[in-house]
Amino acid sequence: MSAKSPDNIPDIVIGRLPLYLRALTRLQQEGKDVTSSHELGKRLDISSAQIRKDLSHFGGFGKQGTGYQIEFLIEKLQQVLQVNTEWSVAVVGAGNLGNAIAHYRGFHYRGFRIACVFDADPNKIGKSIGDFTVQSQETMAEQIKEQNIKIAMLAVPAEYAQEVADKLIEAGVRAILNYAPINIIVPDNVQIQYIDPVTHLQHMTYYLSQD
Amino acid sequence: MSAKSPDNIPDIVIGRLPLYLRALTRLQQEGKDVTSSHELGKRLDISSAQIRKDLSHFGGFGKQGTGYQIEFLIEKLQQVLQVNTEWSVAVVGAGNLGNAIAHYRGFHYRGFRIACVFDADPNKIGKSIGDFTVQSQETMAEQIKEQNIKIAMLAVPAEYAQEVADKLIEAGVRAILNYAPINIIVPDNVQIQYIDPVTHLQHMTYYLSQD
Repeated sequence: MSAKSPDNIPDIVIGRLPLYLRALTRLQQEGKDVTSSHELGKRLDISSAQIRKDLSHFGGFGKQGTGYQIEFLIEKLQQVLQVNTEWSVAVVGAGNLGNAIAHYRGFHYRGFRIACVFDADPNKIGKSIGDFTVQSQETMAEQIKEQNIKIAMLAVPAEYAQEVADKLIEAGVRAILNYAPINIIVPDNVQIQYIDPVTHLQHMTYYLSQD
Repeated sequence: MSAKSPDNIPDIVIGRLPLYLRALTRLQQEGKDVTSSHELGKRLDISSAQIRKDLSHFGGFGKQGTGYQIEFLIEKLQQVLQVNTEWSVAVVGAGNLGNAIAHYRGFHYRGFRIACVFDADPNKIGKSIGDFTVQSQETMAEQIKEQNIKIAMLAVPAEYAQEVADKLIEAGVRAILNYAPINIIVPDNVQIQYIDPVTHLQHMTYYLSQD
């Protein structure tokens, strides 16, 4: 909520860039070379005016009347979002969710690589999940420092989330994606984002009729 | 994006209510009876003025100077979000992610109950995940109609997401939480929300320094 853009671009605009990047990559996979704010907007249910305005923050990526060169725009967005290089990510929590994350094949080509998986449960430490051996949380800080890991995904029970986040931050982590259904407090120089399916479901039920 | 509130309340406000409900429930679990917009705001990194303004859309839930009765506010928010009753949810996709969803214990007390799990893969159909037997997608429409299921979670590969969503909607589903990393098109009377960890990670890397 309090994220500050280095270029004073509203955070809500930054939050839409990954959606543009995802849709553009899909268009490229479909064999297209050029797109328009209208085509993108239809796919994303975002107005074409909004898309043009968002992209104008970063300079003119398209020419009036000729649309956007998809490959060029993808490269530019990857640069802006700093995902033109690959970030190492630590996963904390090797339960069912951590397991799904560790097996997920969708990180790699989008700028991320799972580097290690940690858990506090002696029954899980040493076991394999996907390509990883679950490591003890006791070695977590050391490993994160050694590997210079800046990003972590938190898949631990809610009651441990703050404590684990504090340890990660002390070890040098600067961005946390928290799957635990609890808000955690982080310093201003640390990014935090949340994934909680129930908040999405509850958002939708507001609009449902119960007949 | 185009969601219309029955009471003309901005969708962004509705989206914050589940966060308030989650934080209030946590405060209650900690044994508290009363809270304030300041305490809530600190936990959620949302300004207290924003919280008061959001809640004012639904009538006066707190008295000036005495704060909010937590139990009362929880009940009211549950009513507004229509999660004071339990919704049945279908899960489509029994891979690692579908498996994590089926095992997750956090739906129940927040208004949802997984009712059934479907997959198209003959190797998965008939297998158990958690308390469920994976059922064939061929019986999906029938079951959804029979059980009057209005909500589905989509954990299928991106290339099948639109096709499966279309079938779900035809069978009566009115709200879809899509985990597949692709935007899908739904009619105006259907709610759609997305969970894609990479969009969150890419949002955060924008702010990271690469030292």
